[in-house]
Amino acid sequence: MLPVLDHGYVRLIETWGRGDAGEAEAGIVEAARQSTQGSFRGWDKDEKLLRFLYTARPPHATPFEFAGMVVEVQAPIAVFREWHRHRTQSYNEMSARYAPLPDLNYVPTVERCLAVSATNKQAGAVEGSEPISTEAAMVWLETLKLDYARCEQTYRDGLFRGVPKELARMVLPVGRYSRMRASANLRNWLAFLTLRLDPAAQWEMRQYAEAVGTIIAREFPRTWSLFAEGCHKGE
Amino acid sequence: MLPVLDHGYVRLIETWGRGDAGEAEAGIVEAARQSTQGSFRGWDKDEKLLRFLYTARPPHATPFEFAGMVVEVQAPIAVFREWHRHRTQSYNEMSARYAPLPDLNYVPTVERCLAVSATNKQAGAVEGSEPISTEAAMVWLETLKLDYARCEQTYRDGLFRGVPKELARMVLPVGRYSRMRASANLRNWLAFLTLRLDPAAQWEMRQYAEAVGTIIAREFPRTWSLFAEGCHKGE
Amino acid sequence: MLPVLDHGYVRLIETWGRGDAGEAEAGIVEAARQSTQGSFRGWDKDEKLLRFLYTARPPHATPFEFAGMVVEVQAPIAVFREWHRHRTQSYNEMSARYAPLPDLNYVPTVERCLAVSATNKQAGAVEGSEPISTEAAMVWLETLKLDYARCEQTYRDGLFRGVPKELARMVLPVGRYSRMRASANLRNWLAFLTLRLDPAAQWEMRQYAEAVGTIIAREFPRTWSLFAEGCHKGE
Amino acid sequence: MLPVLDHGYVRLIETWGRGDAGEAEAGIVEAARQSTQGSFRGWDKDEKLLRFLYTARPPHATPFEFAGMVVEVQAPIAVFREWHRHRTQSYNEMSARYAPLPDLNYVPTVERCLAVSATNKQAGAVEGSEPISTEAAMVWLETLKLDYARCEQTYRDGLFRGVPKELARMVLPVGRYSRMRASANLRNWLAFLTLRLDPAAQWEMRQYAEAVGTIIAREFPRTWSLFAEGCHKGE
Repeated sequence: MLPVLDHGYVRLIETWGRGDAGEAEAGIVEAARQSTQGSFRGWDKDEKLLRFLYTARPPHATPFEFAGMVVEVQAPIAVFREWHRHRTQSYNEMSARYAPLPDLNYVPTVERCLAVSATNKQAGAVEGSEPISTEAAMVWLETLKLDYARCEQTYRDGLFRGVPKELARMVLPVGRYSRMRASANLRNWLAFLTLRLDPAAQWEMRQYAEAVGTIIAREFPRTWSLFAEGCHKGE
Repeated sequence: MLPVLDHGYVRLIETWGRGDAGEAEAGIVEAARQSTQGSFRGWDKDEKLLRFLYTARPPHATPFEFAGMVVEVQAPIAVFREWHRHRTQSYNEMSARYAPLPDLNYVPTVERCLAVSATNKQAGAVEGSEPISTEAAMVWLETLKLDYARCEQTYRDGLFRGVPKELARMVLPVGRYSRMRASANLRNWLAFLTLRLDPAAQWEMRQYAEAVGTIIAREFPRTWSLFAEGCHKGE
Repeated sequence: MLPVLDHGYVRLIETWGRGDAGEAEAGIVEAARQSTQGSFRGWDKDEKLLRFLYTARPPHATPFEFAGMVVEVQAPIAVFREWHRHRTQSYNEMSARYAPLPDLNYVPTVERCLAVSATNKQAGAVEGSEPISTEAAMVWLETLKLDYARCEQTYRDGLFRGVPKELARMVLPVGRYSRMRASANLRNWLAFLTLRLDPAAQWEMRQYAEAVGTIIAREFPRTWSLFAEGCHKGE
Repeated sequence: MLPVLDHGYVRLIETWGRGDAGEAEAGIVEAARQSTQGSFRGWDKDEKLLRFLYTARPPHATPFEFAGMVVEVQAPIAVFREWHRHRTQSYNEMSARYAPLPDLNYVPTVERCLAVSATNKQAGAVEGSEPISTEAAMVWLETLKLDYARCEQTYRDGLFRGVPKELARMVLPVGRYSRMRASANLRNWLAFLTLRLDPAAQWEMRQYAEAVGTIIAREFPRTWSLFAEGCHKGE
């Protein structure tokens, strides 16, 4: 289990793609060999074939759909809001309609608050704002924590008074943690990483993408090394 | 524009599916006739063909992908969280990374709070809670409004002090309104409605589904009447 | 490996969906429990939970996306033409652009030729045709075999004379066998079977669907029994 | 209607994406402005915004899902076999289960047969083949035509003798023409073109891709010019 942010994590549940040969990534090259039928010399080596598939322009991407993985993720709702825009993954998330969400909320560090990007407008401050100071950040984070606590109190109070669960949750901030399982094939995990490891992605989202990348690097090392050497540029 | 809840709406932007003939739903029957080539008598009538496609078991669903529509929706984040689980639609939503979200928050009515379902566990109260009373609902709604106001203040304060926009938004509750455009073909709009008009769907979500249904009934009346007469049962 | 038709087969490559618990179909119930958080008594039993997910109206289908399988299929091109219309599967097929296709062609049995459906127009004879006889079928099948042989000769001749592989293949009939790997999650395999096990599906296609069903029944027995008892009716 | 090959064509049926403003491509920029809320100066100009969306790395692709088009295509089955691998389009194709396919077959030109690529292995001749000559090509094309005629005769004969339509078609070569309607959003049409306009794509397929490109250039000129200037490189 890889810890992410203050209360989050990414945890591998299972992988597939071992094919007939029964070893990691074998399913990818076996799928590719369905097409080539071993017709070209040199492609008989797995590594060489993987590189060809990945670096061809345009790439031969479908064989990378023959491997995949399931992970469990705990993250703030704000992060899930971005994650769920990836329509090629399968999701099953905790539902506050079934059971009260646990009282876990994301409190950024002071350093994170100070990381105002001058170049990335999306990560920047609003125009006309003060330049952020350590003290201002500390004060704001205290207020944030108080608001989290107050919203939790209102939530519990609503539940206790008999407000329907699905309605009481309206007060929960998007900094609240939730949990899900996510499944995708390797091609789509890499497409996810291309977008979410990008410097333009929100910092919190990137921490989760890096954890996903760490797992892929360990489970699918040859595909990962192609991705990491920048072959994915241009996809 | 169809108003939904206290500050939301669904608004039609455009439809397609007029085909060669240039009239509503003609694109559906023309697509279907690509397959049949007019080979069977009786199918020459549009209405009869539409009914055959829709009521066949299993249905011939692809022709209904040859029409579609784009809508604009303003809804609480909690509603968008459910909506975005539909992976066959296209979305473009307001981003609090670009610009501060307007201060609009969903405050349910007292009646809505009292509508605790005894049969639908998801819409129900937590076990061991008090039976909700009008007075309890009124008190809780006042607290909810205060929390919305306080969170807004923290949000604005953070933005003013220079906290990055993408971070300041963590304090916003899921009752906050956002806005998006959504596009899908008619087959997928109907699949969306089958799930979201269902009595088991959250009441707030259903209000939006009903607005979408109202627009479809007006723009695609023949398909809608097949859907509405319960032909969609069993899909 | 399950033989299908005269030269085809379906062969299981691998499955996934064993979850944390490491046993078949555990991944499905674990995904579902992400949502319910064990909040309702009785749902703690796997079998009971699976049944609830499957038989709910509308069904809770996403957990069934947390299992899946890869198969290898050898089938006539005419069958692949129907199969590939399922857009939720991943495919890697032999390519006649890379290597000549082996000389395998589908020759139906006499009995199959006589199975003219009176009720299913698609499976029927053209209007105005003679009622088919055993002798007519035998004669026609001989002609078919000769045409297969002649087309193969033209194909090989083209390849020998230097016609580009991608062009020489134009002469190959859709009764020619090809081979592929196909991958999908369990939800989508069941959707495939709902359409392709249907009596209205082409007989050849159904033979492949039945082989797929046989594998699912063995690998995912509890989900299969829900599908088989007709719970899938109405999906 | 744009003619392609000897008997094929691509014909525009309809487009969408005119948005509120009611003019071509307006739907794209309006969708994008849902996100930006007009927060950045300069992005108020449509053309500038389109360029930003398209050239950002990674690109902001979803707004291009808010336009699209439906076309009708007549092409050899071999071309449809490649086309249908694009799983983001909607298809309705002529079905030989409903009605006999018209007797149209693709006969390449002599020049086409001579275009054996030395560099593109897929478009090349098999190893050990003779270098193709004009005379060899002419002879082979005559044989191809005779095979087409013979297969057609067997097809008609089977239909006449009462062989089920769905079975009689087994003898039809993949050079036979079929017809379909295809629908996709603009993002996915461009992804289709990125793969199918590529020099590595089969020449016949590229002729269809070029016809699709011609229509997009006319209907969505600003998006097309971004695509054409090579901005799509690296996607």
